[in-house]
Amino acid sequence: MSRAELFRIATAGPADHTGLAELSAFDPSTVRAVVGKTEGNGCVNDFSRELAARSWGERLPGDPLTIMSGGTEGVLSPHVTLLAEVPDEPGGEPGALAIGVAKSDPIAPQALGRKAQVEAVAAAVKDACQGSGIEPHDVSLALVKCPLLDADALWRGAAEAPGPITEDPYESMSRSRGASALGVGLAVGELDPAAVESGLDGDTTTWSAVASTSAGREVRRCHVVVLGPARSSRGRLRATTVVMEDALDAGPAVAALKEIETAGGRAVQIFAKAEADPSGSIRGHRHTMLTDSDIGATRHARAAVGGLLAGLTGQSDIYVSGGAEHQGPAGGGPVTIVWTT
Amino acid sequence: MSRAELFRIATAGPADHTGLAELSAFDPSTVRAVVGKTEGNGCVNDFSRELAARSWGERLPGDPLTIMSGGTEGVLSPHVTLLAEVPDEPGGEPGALAIGVAKSDPIAPQALGRKAQVEAVAAAVKDACQGSGIEPHDVSLALVKCPLLDADALWRGAAEAPGPITEDPYESMSRSRGASALGVGLAVGELDPAAVESGLDGDTTTWSAVASTSAGREVRRCHVVVLGPARSSRGRLRATTVVMEDALDAGPAVAALKEIETAGGRAVQIFAKAEADPSGSIRGHRHTMLTDSDIGATRHARAAVGGLLAGLTGQSDIYVSGGAEHQGPAGGGPVTIVWTT
Amino acid sequence: MSRAELFRIATAGPADHTGLAELSAFDPSTVRAVVGKTEGNGCVNDFSRELAARSWGERLPGDPLTIMSGGTEGVLSPHVTLLAEVPDEPGGEPGALAIGVAKSDPIAPQALGRKAQVEAVAAAVKDACQGSGIEPHDVSLALVKCPLLDADALWRGAAEAPGPITEDPYESMSRSRGASALGVGLAVGELDPAAVESGLDGDTTTWSAVASTSAGREVRRCHVVVLGPARSSRGRLRATTVVMEDALDAGPAVAALKEIETAGGRAVQIFAKAEADPSGSIRGHRHTMLTDSDIGATRHARAAVGGLLAGLTGQSDIYVSGGAEHQGPAGGGPVTIVWTT
Amino acid sequence: MSRAELFRIATAGPADHTGLAELSAFDPSTVRAVVGKTEGNGCVNDFSRELAARSWGERLPGDPLTIMSGGTEGVLSPHVTLLAEVPDEPGGEPGALAIGVAKSDPIAPQALGRKAQVEAVAAAVKDACQGSGIEPHDVSLALVKCPLLDADALWRGAAEAPGPITEDPYESMSRSRGASALGVGLAVGELDPAAVESGLDGDTTTWSAVASTSAGREVRRCHVVVLGPARSSRGRLRATTVVMEDALDAGPAVAALKEIETAGGRAVQIFAKAEADPSGSIRGHRHTMLTDSDIGATRHARAAVGGLLAGLTGQSDIYVSGGAEHQGPAGGGPVTIVWTT
Repeated sequence: MSRAELFRIATAGPADHTGLAELSAFDPSTVRAVVGKTEGNGCVNDFSRELAARSWGERLPGDPLTIMSGGTEGVLSPHVTLLAEVPDEPGGEPGALAIGVAKSDPIAPQALGRKAQVEAVAAAVKDACQGSGIEPHDVSLALVKCPLLDADALWRGAAEAPGPITEDPYESMSRSRGASALGVGLAVGELDPAAVESGLDGDTTTWSAVASTSAGREVRRCHVVVLGPARSSRGRLRATTVVMEDALDAGPAVAALKEIETAGGRAVQIFAKAEADPSGSIRGHRHTMLTDSDIGATRHARAAVGGLLAGLTGQSDIYVSGGAEHQGPAGGGPVTIVWTT
Repeated sequence: MSRAELFRIATAGPADHTGLAELSAFDPSTVRAVVGKTEGNGCVNDFSRELAARSWGERLPGDPLTIMSGGTEGVLSPHVTLLAEVPDEPGGEPGALAIGVAKSDPIAPQALGRKAQVEAVAAAVKDACQGSGIEPHDVSLALVKCPLLDADALWRGAAEAPGPITEDPYESMSRSRGASALGVGLAVGELDPAAVESGLDGDTTTWSAVASTSAGREVRRCHVVVLGPARSSRGRLRATTVVMEDALDAGPAVAALKEIETAGGRAVQIFAKAEADPSGSIRGHRHTMLTDSDIGATRHARAAVGGLLAGLTGQSDIYVSGGAEHQGPAGGGPVTIVWTT
Repeated sequence: MSRAELFRIATAGPADHTGLAELSAFDPSTVRAVVGKTEGNGCVNDFSRELAARSWGERLPGDPLTIMSGGTEGVLSPHVTLLAEVPDEPGGEPGALAIGVAKSDPIAPQALGRKAQVEAVAAAVKDACQGSGIEPHDVSLALVKCPLLDADALWRGAAEAPGPITEDPYESMSRSRGASALGVGLAVGELDPAAVESGLDGDTTTWSAVASTSAGREVRRCHVVVLGPARSSRGRLRATTVVMEDALDAGPAVAALKEIETAGGRAVQIFAKAEADPSGSIRGHRHTMLTDSDIGATRHARAAVGGLLAGLTGQSDIYVSGGAEHQGPAGGGPVTIVWTT
Repeated sequence: MSRAELFRIATAGPADHTGLAELSAFDPSTVRAVVGKTEGNGCVNDFSRELAARSWGERLPGDPLTIMSGGTEGVLSPHVTLLAEVPDEPGGEPGALAIGVAKSDPIAPQALGRKAQVEAVAAAVKDACQGSGIEPHDVSLALVKCPLLDADALWRGAAEAPGPITEDPYESMSRSRGASALGVGLAVGELDPAAVESGLDGDTTTWSAVASTSAGREVRRCHVVVLGPARSSRGRLRATTVVMEDALDAGPAVAALKEIETAGGRAVQIFAKAEADPSGSIRGHRHTMLTDSDIGATRHARAAVGGLLAGLTGQSDIYVSGGAEHQGPAGGGPVTIVWTT
């Protein structure tokens, strides 16, 4: 069987892949997914994602799946994480991290944010697990790139019943992320269909602890990458997933990092979700992320949680994505630490 | 002698002072300074500062000095810190935190960012120490609110030799903060006149560890508050000042907080400065704060360092101010923890 | 009887009223309303409006009503228009412009954007006409300042059935403006109750040609000013109201200005509404105002229509307000030219 | 000889070239330049330009030169203008519009904004005229795309004397545009070397009436397109260039459009430059474009002048570019109307 391998590459711009040249003993054909943080606004009109997806898609063989998340606010550093599928490490321990990828069918504009998207993502997550050696209930992290409703999609969506779920493109990102997260939760067994319905109805207590979803105009289908331990995979990569209860909740990450250190391990990448607490306050203190008409709330959240996680780890080229609908509790979000023994 | 006392009040908007009603055993006439974080952009056209200064100035007796710092990005919570001068605590230990305040003469537009401003601030810092019981070299924190060059000031500055130091209003904030910080350093003995000259010439290795300066269009004079231990003051407030080497440098604050905890103390407020590393990278990793034309670099820095310090302390109503020119090393900044035994 | 008089004053900042000193033969006690364009973002967190309202309210006697509209994008110049009620011009022609003002009751958070707000505004418009000599169906311009749902109002609104109409503060501005415009249309007889219902249900073909509504966090009540000809008023001020069909529709204003010139008149102020066409395109050409996550659509619209009207008139200190829901056709908006014979 | 032809194509996004399919009788191999308005912020971190340049460069044969100008604020509509070189129209009148293109050598970071860039652009303009049939002094419009100093270029520039002309990436765009405009003026004979020196020293009265320059991180060389009448070219395209004295100056464009109409012609595209008046006011009225820390001044200027020109012509898919340093008088800018008889 195979195992997952991870390479982190700094980028000088969204289209830059010159850092590939510095990788030694690297076979480009093993790359299954390119997961990037690009330096656009991470919102509706972020074209850095499309530029990066195009540039990396053209550079690497085998049509790897791309998940480009915009927004490197604050200390966050633009980079890509290459996720590869490579042969088992001879003599390596079993239970190493494996990888699976899949794409859903195209999400129709009127399906976005609704049950049809949930089901499309759930199916894609299962597809991605299929053959990867990862059992759905063992998934440590399911990264999803999903569409949004831009002007064109809104117009097309309006033509089909029941019409688009929202006419606000920025809000459509939230709806798409939320439905994708519910789809992950359904696929991995965190949520049952009733919980999904409840989530679609606005229940924020219904969430996945392993979903990390990001919306963008550069995709029509949902792109899915799953990482998780596979009994049959032999190697040194592991993943630890914790959940931040709110944006100040440093404790779980601190504890996990300490545990990894105690085990003699070393973190090689962090994948986190962040959001502005929808209640308008954190631990009783008002925040202004939702009333700032100059900066989107997702940008604020990435900057703050990125600042915290980068400070805790000393690493700023980490994947922090904004908008954590149904990904961890309201105002919080999951954090997956990929580490090597 | 007297000692300093500190009250932290949440605000529902820049003009809101209804939180005052919740303070018990509080005498408004003791307030010497109102230090606020308001929810504007913290940049040139931030009118939340002026609104807050006006509202609090009208509400409190005795014309307390106001220092309003705009920008509560990310998790930061709008609030004011009232700094009062109250009678010694009977039987309290000596060496408690004392307070002094002063205003400089008006800063002429052509003086802004130049030696004349440095000297005006240095004189005001000494004035503030005078009679407070704080020796200049014992200052733990010198908060300064200083002017900027808006359209009107630029026009007036252009009429007088040598003209304004910059024609860019946002850049003028940086120059004003920098000159104020050099003035603090000069007054407290961290810097000598040659170091000040060097700093004015762009040497970023010349800095104060106790200055926290903030620019705004709402002042023509520099407002100065000093906090520091006074041999003659008896009470429980103390201050610990550390320096972050860069925006990821959580270590010094973590260590100081631990030390305070060990001493049985409790942090009551944090005053920090943050900035985008002028080199364009942090520990070798590129950041994008200086090339983001949608969000000012100071906003990014506040969000990130605010996120880190709030996460480390669990408190989001803390004073984090952006733009740390000559306040700590390039890319870093001082952090003052006020605590009570 | 009395008549309306209008004074236009440049401001150096939101709180600036030094321009008053330059007015000759001006009696401050005659001012009934201060209508300003202030230089904030014109969105949720625009504190320039509150600062201006406070400053002018304190400066002028008699508690004049304030309507502060934020946003002076592009060439627009910050200023206030003082609307006064002065004695008739002896020997002046009848039918001169008169003025009326009124405030509604407070708008409860759960009433905002709903029928209760429509009715409150309609009642206030009638109140304002009452005693002004203006017949409701003769109103040339009804300026309204109405509340929005900020974090606090959302929280309060959530406690009362049926809850807030939206949880997005920026969207609440749109809802509030729309309901206010429908209220104006109802009061002046442009709309009947069925049309209002239809408008509340999203019908954009239901609109007023004389409403100019603006939302802000600085009010809890709706502030209403009406201008219109009164049979009994004698003086030289007149108003001509036209409607732009879309943001490119220069024709009606050009024709009206020419007509005024032909009549030997001179425009003394222009009040216009502007909006991003909700269809996402103008005359078949896509615009990007609704997909720009960095700049609010109302800011874009003010800049563009302000640029057009300022270019047509050579005047940049004009009142152009963004967000024209139910004010003129979708994508267009009313333009009222106040002129003197 | 050949003549210029012009095709205007709406785009659904920066990478979209599906509109090409709707062109009839179009030979892609004739395209010499693709001049686009893309929907990014038009500032330092605008990646829509690079995405568009890449997409069109890959789509069209013969490596056409690309000039992508970001920013479609307000009513402006994203589109590209294809400029082709096609055979003379048999029996067409001589003096038709011709086209020439050229690229300069790479602009070193320390050359940017300085004499070396002026000379490189001047040489490229002459190169572009060479063989096009356009005499330099007959150039109607010289479009230039020129580099900026991003983080990487700043770092490289710092290594070479005399260092970069500015350390502010946004300011570097202004310097690059200015030097390019001076280069155009030098090449076409509007400016002599002394005037260029004066312009580089900050003299804003030194300008070209035919330059339209735009900076971007997507180029290292300057891309130049010249349009102008050629004695030997036979066809129906003509160009009329006028100069706006300030951003309100509608008169010259109105007059030119009327003249074209009178001649039985029809405008097919408009190329305009716009800028925030560096004095901070227009015709004595303060503007706030230079003190708005949320929106770049170039964005404001495009929105306003775009709104005016689109309103005057009824066309929103026009080329309006922001930042008119040494392109028309301070605060104004050239407008070139391409029309067909």
